[in-house]
Amino acid sequence: MAWNTNLRWRLPLTCLLLQVAMVVLFGVFMRYDTDADVSWWREKAHRNITTDLENEFYYRYPSFQDVHVMVFMGFGFLMTFLQRYGFGGVGFNFLLAAFGIQWALLMQGWFHHLDPKGRYILLGIESLINADFCVASVCVAFGAVLGKVSPIQLLVMTLFQVTLFTVNEYILLDILEVKDAGGSMTIHTFGAYFGLTVTWILYRRNLEHSKQKQSSVYHSDLFAMIGTLFLWMYWPSFNSAISSHGDAQHRAAINTYCSLAASVLTSVALSSALNKKGKLDMVHIQNATLAGGVGVGTTAEMMLTPYGALIVGFFCGFISTLGFVFLTPFLESRLRIQDTCGIHNLHGIPGVLGGIAGAVTVVFADPDMYGPAGFSKKVRESRIQGKFQIYGLLLSLAMALVGGIMVGLILRLLFWGQPADENCFEDEVYWEVPEENRASHDPEDSTLKPPALLIPSGTPAFSQVLVA
Amino acid sequence: MAWNTNLRWRLPLTCLLLQVAMVVLFGVFMRYDTDADVSWWREKAHRNITTDLENEFYYRYPSFQDVHVMVFMGFGFLMTFLQRYGFGGVGFNFLLAAFGIQWALLMQGWFHHLDPKGRYILLGIESLINADFCVASVCVAFGAVLGKVSPIQLLVMTLFQVTLFTVNEYILLDILEVKDAGGSMTIHTFGAYFGLTVTWILYRRNLEHSKQKQSSVYHSDLFAMIGTLFLWMYWPSFNSAISSHGDAQHRAAINTYCSLAASVLTSVALSSALNKKGKLDMVHIQNATLAGGVGVGTTAEMMLTPYGALIVGFFCGFISTLGFVFLTPFLESRLRIQDTCGIHNLHGIPGVLGGIAGAVTVVFADPDMYGPAGFSKKVRESRIQGKFQIYGLLLSLAMALVGGIMVGLILRLLFWGQPADENCFEDEVYWEVPEENRASHDPEDSTLKPPALLIPSGTPAFSQVLVA
Amino acid sequence: MAWNTNLRWRLPLTCLLLQVAMVVLFGVFMRYDTDADVSWWREKAHRNITTDLENEFYYRYPSFQDVHVMVFMGFGFLMTFLQRYGFGGVGFNFLLAAFGIQWALLMQGWFHHLDPKGRYILLGIESLINADFCVASVCVAFGAVLGKVSPIQLLVMTLFQVTLFTVNEYILLDILEVKDAGGSMTIHTFGAYFGLTVTWILYRRNLEHSKQKQSSVYHSDLFAMIGTLFLWMYWPSFNSAISSHGDAQHRAAINTYCSLAASVLTSVALSSALNKKGKLDMVHIQNATLAGGVGVGTTAEMMLTPYGALIVGFFCGFISTLGFVFLTPFLESRLRIQDTCGIHNLHGIPGVLGGIAGAVTVVFADPDMYGPAGFSKKVRESRIQGKFQIYGLLLSLAMALVGGIMVGLILRLLFWGQPADENCFEDEVYWEVPEENRASHDPEDSTLKPPALLIPSGTPAFSQVLVA
Repeated sequence: MAWNTNLRWRLPLTCLLLQVAMVVLFGVFMRYDTDADVSWWREKAHRNITTDLENEFYYRYPSFQDVHVMVFMGFGFLMTFLQRYGFGGVGFNFLLAAFGIQWALLMQGWFHHLDPKGRYILLGIESLINADFCVASVCVAFGAVLGKVSPIQLLVMTLFQVTLFTVNEYILLDILEVKDAGGSMTIHTFGAYFGLTVTWILYRRNLEHSKQKQSSVYHSDLFAMIGTLFLWMYWPSFNSAISSHGDAQHRAAINTYCSLAASVLTSVALSSALNKKGKLDMVHIQNATLAGGVGVGTTAEMMLTPYGALIVGFFCGFISTLGFVFLTPFLESRLRIQDTCGIHNLHGIPGVLGGIAGAVTVVFADPDMYGPAGFSKKVRESRIQGKFQIYGLLLSLAMALVGGIMVGLILRLLFWGQPADENCFEDEVYWEVPEENRASHDPEDSTLKPPALLIPSGTPAFSQVLVA
Repeated sequence: MAWNTNLRWRLPLTCLLLQVAMVVLFGVFMRYDTDADVSWWREKAHRNITTDLENEFYYRYPSFQDVHVMVFMGFGFLMTFLQRYGFGGVGFNFLLAAFGIQWALLMQGWFHHLDPKGRYILLGIESLINADFCVASVCVAFGAVLGKVSPIQLLVMTLFQVTLFTVNEYILLDILEVKDAGGSMTIHTFGAYFGLTVTWILYRRNLEHSKQKQSSVYHSDLFAMIGTLFLWMYWPSFNSAISSHGDAQHRAAINTYCSLAASVLTSVALSSALNKKGKLDMVHIQNATLAGGVGVGTTAEMMLTPYGALIVGFFCGFISTLGFVFLTPFLESRLRIQDTCGIHNLHGIPGVLGGIAGAVTVVFADPDMYGPAGFSKKVRESRIQGKFQIYGLLLSLAMALVGGIMVGLILRLLFWGQPADENCFEDEVYWEVPEENRASHDPEDSTLKPPALLIPSGTPAFSQVLVA
Repeated sequence: MAWNTNLRWRLPLTCLLLQVAMVVLFGVFMRYDTDADVSWWREKAHRNITTDLENEFYYRYPSFQDVHVMVFMGFGFLMTFLQRYGFGGVGFNFLLAAFGIQWALLMQGWFHHLDPKGRYILLGIESLINADFCVASVCVAFGAVLGKVSPIQLLVMTLFQVTLFTVNEYILLDILEVKDAGGSMTIHTFGAYFGLTVTWILYRRNLEHSKQKQSSVYHSDLFAMIGTLFLWMYWPSFNSAISSHGDAQHRAAINTYCSLAASVLTSVALSSALNKKGKLDMVHIQNATLAGGVGVGTTAEMMLTPYGALIVGFFCGFISTLGFVFLTPFLESRLRIQDTCGIHNLHGIPGVLGGIAGAVTVVFADPDMYGPAGFSKKVRESRIQGKFQIYGLLLSLAMALVGGIMVGLILRLLFWGQPADENCFEDEVYWEVPEENRASHDPEDSTLKPPALLIPSGTPAFSQVLVA
């Protein structure tokens, strides 16, 4: 083995250092938002509110919980079982997300939730949603490098990606004043191309050896559906979570619901049409059915109209399935981009499509219709706002590429404890795997292909144990 | 194989045709409801509301999400693993539900959510709940035919059943003015008897050959519990989702909670009492424990009293367990009704009981107590309302039988790509099953019963792979 | 076998008797709360409220549903798969929780929700949350005895524990006026030490024989993560569910979110540092990551500050992981406490820490800051309130010990149908296990260790079937 993967001191030190840093930074900079502070009774008196329901908590909390489920459960399970790579999928997703939300609370708060005097970051329910959003983008990128990196590398990547995400989002939403409620550009496009760039830099020449551990397996595919369904069911909450109260939030949920429904049918159609015997491929059903949610991210809160939402979902499901069949093999063989979970098809292309759909929708919008609350903060003509939407999309791509190259180069350093090529997608490298499975490690077993589904060789990747 | 199960052109064309039709129909007929339209600020001014919380979205959205989870996750997992039939369970439930909600938005909207001029269907959060309700009824029927039909047949069945459901519901709720908040009659009774009639028409003489693939398996039963628990936990949201704001919705959740708790204990009691060694049967625990939710559907929002709810749950759990032990074998051997998931016991009988419970509760209700908001839209005497409740129940049964026969006959046509009797409950017919499992297809394997739990024969139905 | 485990008459009679008793008691004592009663329209008029949103239902229902998911899904799955003991984990958790909530509605209502005349218990959404809280405490204790008791024993334990819980909680919250929003003391400390005392009394000398069925298994660990993630994601709802409306509830959710995030990083750090090769142990990730939620239970709604929450989570994750490595083996070998799921590390120690954290936070609190609504019902000095917090903690421990001894002695009686030592952790004792698995019962199989992961012996505990 070329590199030392024993993390005994490095991982604990990294975790503790990061956690202590968080405690100190929180201590110095973080206070409760007025809505979460005991001084809320003064605020109520001051704003002349008679009911506690006007506390932001009641507007946002149910949506927040759904977003939380998507980030921790949806991504964890979809990605784990897609790859038959168990602890490393669920466990590392858990680790990076738990660190990521803390760092995101600081970074996002710094840009968006400072108190009037600029001394403290104010922590409220909206900060929690924003932190989860930010981490969703890291989870997307995680899908590209899954199984090929150490937990320390993941923590480093999270640190940088959260920072870059926040800067990018700040420029888009606050400087360019771009609309992107569900994050087609800021979350999905940025996350996907960042992850793809990192995995391109981290290209592994001899990954074919561990290829077999990575391909799709019957029952593992079934459990990935737990993740898919969570993402699919709660996506309307995701896209509407930070929309303005009232009609915008209501509309965002409806549009996402419609778009997601449409992409299920087109995914099924394409999956069957592209198979010689007309059979469906579970990988398409797990992924492309979600493309409608990504694609409608920017437009969800706009007056897209219900059939507009269906059209967006239609094309996203279509193109995402095509991507799995034609683009992923091409990316891997020609461009040397080893995209473990196929995030380019689920987040990359649909994210870009979503950004373009946003620009088009904005160009045809009637600013008057939006009433006194307005169409965007600055009163702009539709055509100009459309241009800015495209600038936002291009900037997200640029940030992802430049940032991805930088972070990729940092992650290529040799002391992060990364696994050798032949140990990728193996849980035994970083996890204490229970004894029963180690039995399968007996060298004699590897010759035992018959009678039926015995473990062919090597390591107890999740599915192999089950199939054994 | 008698029929051609290669769906390469038929399935894609069906899906795309349906999806394009949805886009066109949505484009022509569907607009946002005022609460989801940018004109909401005008509506607020007009209705003199100062807070966005009065937007229907905040009253309904959390419940809607729970219903959504039940339809897509609960039904998917309960039914899949009950049958050890993986992709075809979760995957096809996903497909039919995704198409069904779109068609239901149109059909339901046509009857319930037209704008004042009757030109457009108005789409709001309540429409989404109604669409999910409607599809729940299709999911119930799906449980009867699961594993024996092609995805095209499922789409056709969904098309017709959603239509019939809407007509039936319209007659019950709007013409007869029957109360049925949680859908004991409209969803469960109608869905179950519709599905049973369809499977009766589609009777398969030689199903015993694939019987062994269908019976209960240890760990598969465990995963079915994921579905059972989702249904059980979110049923209070289901029964209360469209109840009137305030006390009615509150009461509906409480009654359902109580009824469900009671049916757990009686299911356990009966399951143990009917077994020679007093052992529990997992199939009863998965199903009969939910019967209380079905049975309290009509009465949930009424002044049933908490102990009334317990009594309803008590009897439903009781009778549902009896049904699994005595009725299902009888239905199959004598009446030739091959009820794959035993929906007659979970939705059929408890649904009818629920309808009767509703009539009885109404007869003993005191209309004065309900205050100015009233007891039913038309002011009726309790006794007369009770009669109408029974008419509603009978009509639901009649619609299910007549509709089921019609749809069953349509589905018997030979070009839908249905599987041969010996291929029922096999995923390989319609799904690209990963290679590892195809190994098990080796004809020599079928002779290998020992050493332990190797795959006995034929196809890699989910559980067999695991058990292998 | 020493004892008769055939429950054919005993289990059904117990269940039916309990359920009938519930119906009668509900009939005599239970009525709807005003918010859930048709008289709500009078209440609205009387309290001069114009909107139904002021109905307690809308404040509490989303949180309640999350708590519900934790109790029925989180505990069920975490404990089941931790132990590779399937039906008995999920199924018995379901049974005891379904009975427990009914009995808790009565007991809790008796102490907390009587109508002004003291004749009836009023049932509303808050009662449902309290009942679920109470049952959570039973689920914790269940984790200590899991796999070693019969379902009848569990029902008896539930009956007594719910009663003792209610008395303890009443003394703490209403007499001592202790603050304990998320139940560090009332739920976790009490539940854990009660369960540990019971399992200490029920000490089984020859449990090593069934030891192998109990240890951790690769894929089973993965599914336990479903439970872990549900608990982790919904814990903010748990700790904030019954806090005062507005800022307190808002703050409770935020503090719990922060604390949980911190305990993930410290658990990972310690888990790696304590392993010779620096590998992570899945059992720590499943459990210690949740310790932050337990530890912040008392302080969640206080002005703990965000970094205070991080510090609490930091230490809880730390100590909980240490407990798994050093304390559990010691407890078992020296103190004869056979703690099946390691609840001492997840609920016991972090619960005590949480109680102490609460006392400390209170001592440093500024009562003036809390405004007219006040800091505690009685206006006390901070130092005195701190003392009372410690009294509450000590009382909870005392109640757990005394109650646990009493209930343990009752459960040692010989007619409860408990399993023999060598049949512990086996589902076949109480469940009709499907045929395929019974094949594994063939005595000849037990000699078949090779070729790979065949079932080594005895019974089809969940994981063994999968591994087979």
